[in-house]
Amino acid sequence: MNIKPLDVKKVSVTDEFWSRKRELVRTEVIPYQWEILNDRIPEAQASYCMHNFKAAAALNKRKKKQGSKFKEPKFTYRGFAVFPDKREDAKDDEFYGFVFQDSDFYKWIEAVAYSLAGHPDPDLEETADRAIDIVADAQLENGYLDTYYIINGTDKVFTDLRDHHELYCLGHLVEAAVAYERATHKDKLLIVARNYADYVYSVFGEGEGKINGYPGHEIAEMALFKLYDRTGTKRYLELAEYFINERGKEPNYFESEHPDMKGKPDYYHQAHKPVREQDEAVGHAVRAVYLYSGMADMALHTGDEALKQACEKLWDSIVNTKLYITGGIGATHLGEAFSLPYDLPNDTAYSETCAAIGLVFFARRMLQLDPQSKYADIMELALYNTVLAGMALDGKSFFYVNPLEVIPENCHKDERKTHVKPVRQKWFGCACCPPNIARLISSLDQYIYTEDDTTLYVHLYAGSETQKTVNGKKIKISMTSGFPNNGKISIKVKGATATDFTLALRMPGWAEGYFKIQGYERLKTEFKNGYFYCSCFNDDTIVIDLEFDMTPKLIVADEKVAEDAGKVAVVRGPIVYCAEEADNGKALREIHIKTPADLTEEITGEFGYDVVKISADACRIKSEGAEISSTSLYKTYTGRTIEDMKVKLIPYYLWANRGEGEMSVYLGIKD
Amino acid sequence: MNIKPLDVKKVSVTDEFWSRKRELVRTEVIPYQWEILNDRIPEAQASYCMHNFKAAAALNKRKKKQGSKFKEPKFTYRGFAVFPDKREDAKDDEFYGFVFQDSDFYKWIEAVAYSLAGHPDPDLEETADRAIDIVADAQLENGYLDTYYIINGTDKVFTDLRDHHELYCLGHLVEAAVAYERATHKDKLLIVARNYADYVYSVFGEGEGKINGYPGHEIAEMALFKLYDRTGTKRYLELAEYFINERGKEPNYFESEHPDMKGKPDYYHQAHKPVREQDEAVGHAVRAVYLYSGMADMALHTGDEALKQACEKLWDSIVNTKLYITGGIGATHLGEAFSLPYDLPNDTAYSETCAAIGLVFFARRMLQLDPQSKYADIMELALYNTVLAGMALDGKSFFYVNPLEVIPENCHKDERKTHVKPVRQKWFGCACCPPNIARLISSLDQYIYTEDDTTLYVHLYAGSETQKTVNGKKIKISMTSGFPNNGKISIKVKGATATDFTLALRMPGWAEGYFKIQGYERLKTEFKNGYFYCSCFNDDTIVIDLEFDMTPKLIVADEKVAEDAGKVAVVRGPIVYCAEEADNGKALREIHIKTPADLTEEITGEFGYDVVKISADACRIKSEGAEISSTSLYKTYTGRTIEDMKVKLIPYYLWANRGEGEMSVYLGIKD
Repeated sequence: MNIKPLDVKKVSVTDEFWSRKRELVRTEVIPYQWEILNDRIPEAQASYCMHNFKAAAALNKRKKKQGSKFKEPKFTYRGFAVFPDKREDAKDDEFYGFVFQDSDFYKWIEAVAYSLAGHPDPDLEETADRAIDIVADAQLENGYLDTYYIINGTDKVFTDLRDHHELYCLGHLVEAAVAYERATHKDKLLIVARNYADYVYSVFGEGEGKINGYPGHEIAEMALFKLYDRTGTKRYLELAEYFINERGKEPNYFESEHPDMKGKPDYYHQAHKPVREQDEAVGHAVRAVYLYSGMADMALHTGDEALKQACEKLWDSIVNTKLYITGGIGATHLGEAFSLPYDLPNDTAYSETCAAIGLVFFARRMLQLDPQSKYADIMELALYNTVLAGMALDGKSFFYVNPLEVIPENCHKDERKTHVKPVRQKWFGCACCPPNIARLISSLDQYIYTEDDTTLYVHLYAGSETQKTVNGKKIKISMTSGFPNNGKISIKVKGATATDFTLALRMPGWAEGYFKIQGYERLKTEFKNGYFYCSCFNDDTIVIDLEFDMTPKLIVADEKVAEDAGKVAVVRGPIVYCAEEADNGKALREIHIKTPADLTEEITGEFGYDVVKISADACRIKSEGAEISSTSLYKTYTGRTIEDMKVKLIPYYLWANRGEGEMSVYLGIKD
Repeated sequence: MNIKPLDVKKVSVTDEFWSRKRELVRTEVIPYQWEILNDRIPEAQASYCMHNFKAAAALNKRKKKQGSKFKEPKFTYRGFAVFPDKREDAKDDEFYGFVFQDSDFYKWIEAVAYSLAGHPDPDLEETADRAIDIVADAQLENGYLDTYYIINGTDKVFTDLRDHHELYCLGHLVEAAVAYERATHKDKLLIVARNYADYVYSVFGEGEGKINGYPGHEIAEMALFKLYDRTGTKRYLELAEYFINERGKEPNYFESEHPDMKGKPDYYHQAHKPVREQDEAVGHAVRAVYLYSGMADMALHTGDEALKQACEKLWDSIVNTKLYITGGIGATHLGEAFSLPYDLPNDTAYSETCAAIGLVFFARRMLQLDPQSKYADIMELALYNTVLAGMALDGKSFFYVNPLEVIPENCHKDERKTHVKPVRQKWFGCACCPPNIARLISSLDQYIYTEDDTTLYVHLYAGSETQKTVNGKKIKISMTSGFPNNGKISIKVKGATATDFTLALRMPGWAEGYFKIQGYERLKTEFKNGYFYCSCFNDDTIVIDLEFDMTPKLIVADEKVAEDAGKVAVVRGPIVYCAEEADNGKALREIHIKTPADLTEEITGEFGYDVVKISADACRIKSEGAEISSTSLYKTYTGRTIEDMKVKLIPYYLWANRGEGEMSVYLGIKD
């Protein structure tokens, strides 16, 4: 058996830190998004997502009633996003929103599914079931399901794979359908998803009259592997493989749709060369990591060594040259994309929340391919820092872009920074990030553990309970965790005697080998690739206590990262820290941490729960100068003033929860 | 008499430093540009400038011949810039190039005029005269002259003042015509210019059927004041005043042409409010300083105090919040524009050569309004640094954008820096900067001195000879100057006895009061606003020797300039220095100047003439770290290595003359 995440409902997340976030998703994000999807929040941009499904369903009904008399709408392009001037101008039978608007519902229902799995809620399930009814009614008889074309005219379906998101919507539909069926054992949405996937399978591929293209925005690839895993139906596997194998082949498929692309390598869609030849992470960051996740899935399913090696190279390209210290990726807002190696600007960073989420997906799959703690380290980094930063403490506002340095005035006025918001926003017209955060946090159980026949891998330390059957014996595993406030973990294994059960515990890279373990002494142990493997459980109950060193420390970026030259960041365990104006005043760039650093921890309750704040001896350095008569901008340098101070740092994921102000992850050094 | 620049031909520039540049313009830039204007350089983008004038002339001829049978072309918009796919595809009777392509010829002929004034050249004058014949033939009978509309259809003339450059072309035509007439005493081009100006006067203004707009790209304003000064014809003054007074009034004129602008303040064209209410330099930087120059001209001609005050506020806005240390302006490539106050990025700077040239224009006019050395300081700064940097040592390649920090690889690959070139380019499709440099350097005499009835102001120190008649006596003034290599100046005044002659000598702000003067002891002297006024010349020959302290020093930017925090630049006299990879290796950002600084001068011949290089004790600081297992991008900080070195600096204007490499004006500080 390959290494896999655990089945939905097999893990119960009891962790205090994460339960708080999951509860926010359940009580705030999911209900709010449902209102959004139904255009019931007057102050937010109307979504028209459910409106579109209803319009498509009504059209289908009309079509059935009128039979051959029904006049199919003829497609005319009206734009990538169409919104009525005013909400009341919206017509019942028209499509509104982005071409990918359907996917918002699918992301929502996926989050609902995970949430129901962890926390039953009959009212929510009823709402979801009725919504699924509408979606099912919107599907065409042949299985096609994208309301943009159903409403605007199906004569042009699959004619713009590059920019229109029909296969992206398929991907999200499948992800949602599998999750919902697993959580509720109701298969209506799964049947809808299968119908659409079957239709796509029937029209894509080699040969006369078939479309030999692939998704402009990846996700269908990894989704189809999930569908195959759930159903065992080979054609879903074949379709996913087809999409992956075709991408980047010459002649470029997207060029056939968009002749103006001729001769320009298509980095943006990762279609510049065949995937097995790709060795640098390029283009739209979310698309990229979704593709790499699909590639890893394929390597897992087929044992394709070339694909696995490509995944490893792409992983290395990201983590060694294009990763923010916060686990964010995508350094440029131009194309929401990866920039050059080592180009990691802090103030104009894109670092989209969804891209960090995609990196978590990719990391989990690399862990399945090859359980090495380096993958889990980055998964944890992205999760605890950029993903969590994406959502406000109250679950009511969100970051799309996650900068590492902010001066609010510049974000408001500088056109080159309009993508950077100094405080979280209520909801977005293109609302990918909030529901993506919701579905990841609700499905955390899929990332804490993976397993094969005999081994349970612990990648993330979070309070939880699970069980595993080995040699016919049901083994109960319960974990308590002090993360992220402290590094104390306790894992109880019950009922593993006389089985081949192995527990593989990740030793985080950030602990640098500083940890204590107790309770394993009578077990057989082995340390490999950053995991501590324990087997031969010889007592019915074995409790393993771990403590990882979370002493705060200073981190420097590679010297090739120009933006961080001469600066340090403070990191404690998996948490990256930052300085905020609220604690330190303005002009954070003047603050230099004194080295060797004296980093002191203190617990604060100001965020509503216990959070570790760090303070450090620092100084404010200002250059002094003598006035020049012709300008006050420049002065003759006369020396520097150095004023001692304590700099106070908070976890990066908590920034911008105390109003608008400056923030910086990196600070200067004074030695 | 108001303060004015000296008439063309009254000053003979003998300065070694400047003669070298002027000779380059005469022997390299002017002949090369003539080839460009005639599409005779195969490897450069064809200009089609003379092609268009010829096409318009041919059309006029045809029209005359055919009389009423002639069918006027009907205008259809083909784009802001139209080029044939291949040069051989160009049709004789079509317009090619940018809408403002005509102005390239005007800039060229203006440079030719100044050059002929300083250095007669019958062959060049003949070429110019024949070109002027073609331009005259292109003019319509009513005086209109813009080949874009003449060729494409005159039914739409003056319908897009915002984006089409008919009035911009008028401005450059007028500037050129006045200069050419002054230099050669030939008035053919001046008559053409007057005809066009007369036509514009007849169709613009208040009242039924008149156009009450103003130029989208300013320059006609200042040009028309020149035309008025030359001809005494009042309507040119009125037209210039009209353009200035109308700008920014409500309802906004450009909105009537472009309804989509409705409600958006038009900063880009400085039309966001009436000019007298403007107090912050905004929008397209070249447009802005051309407008401010015209406003200063108007204040000079009319004594309008509100306009003068607006000019002063705009000047202060530039020099106190939006000026690069190199005298460059326009911090953002978005709209080639001024950014926010104190936003002065070094690596993405726009700092267009033409904008620095425009700042020189503005400064000279402020000096006319109010002779204060602070204006001349900035004029000198822009001239010796950004303007000169615009042209290669051999006069064959040019910078459009003048960054203060360059890492070549980033310019080549980073989409956000594609406007920044690490080496000068041969010629540009939009070729405003090279001919603008040519016309400024050729007309340097207009900036060295200004005068009123009795006073000769010396603003720039450059070897030159001039004369001035005061109380009927002809006074000869000769100056020798060691600038920029040394601060030694000698000024001989002959024949000023028993006159009211006053010599006003600028005391540069950068000398900070450190200078020696000899020879003035028996004169009446006064120090005012940075000028040393000498009068009562009591000997037939008086020689005043000055020496300004050019000891190199460190300059810091205001603390509000985030990009320069913790850094210094080295300046010597009017020259700003920079470090280049050629002298210091890569990774200039690691170099820190040790303070208090020990700045040593040495003369080098490596640029073909004597140049003062500066070396300073410095060190390379690198952060060291211990590897983290999951990424090589970040390391646990273990301290810094500090390696002593000498940093070598060259004048900024000479950068990128030794191949491609890193460059930085600012360096770190180590104390």
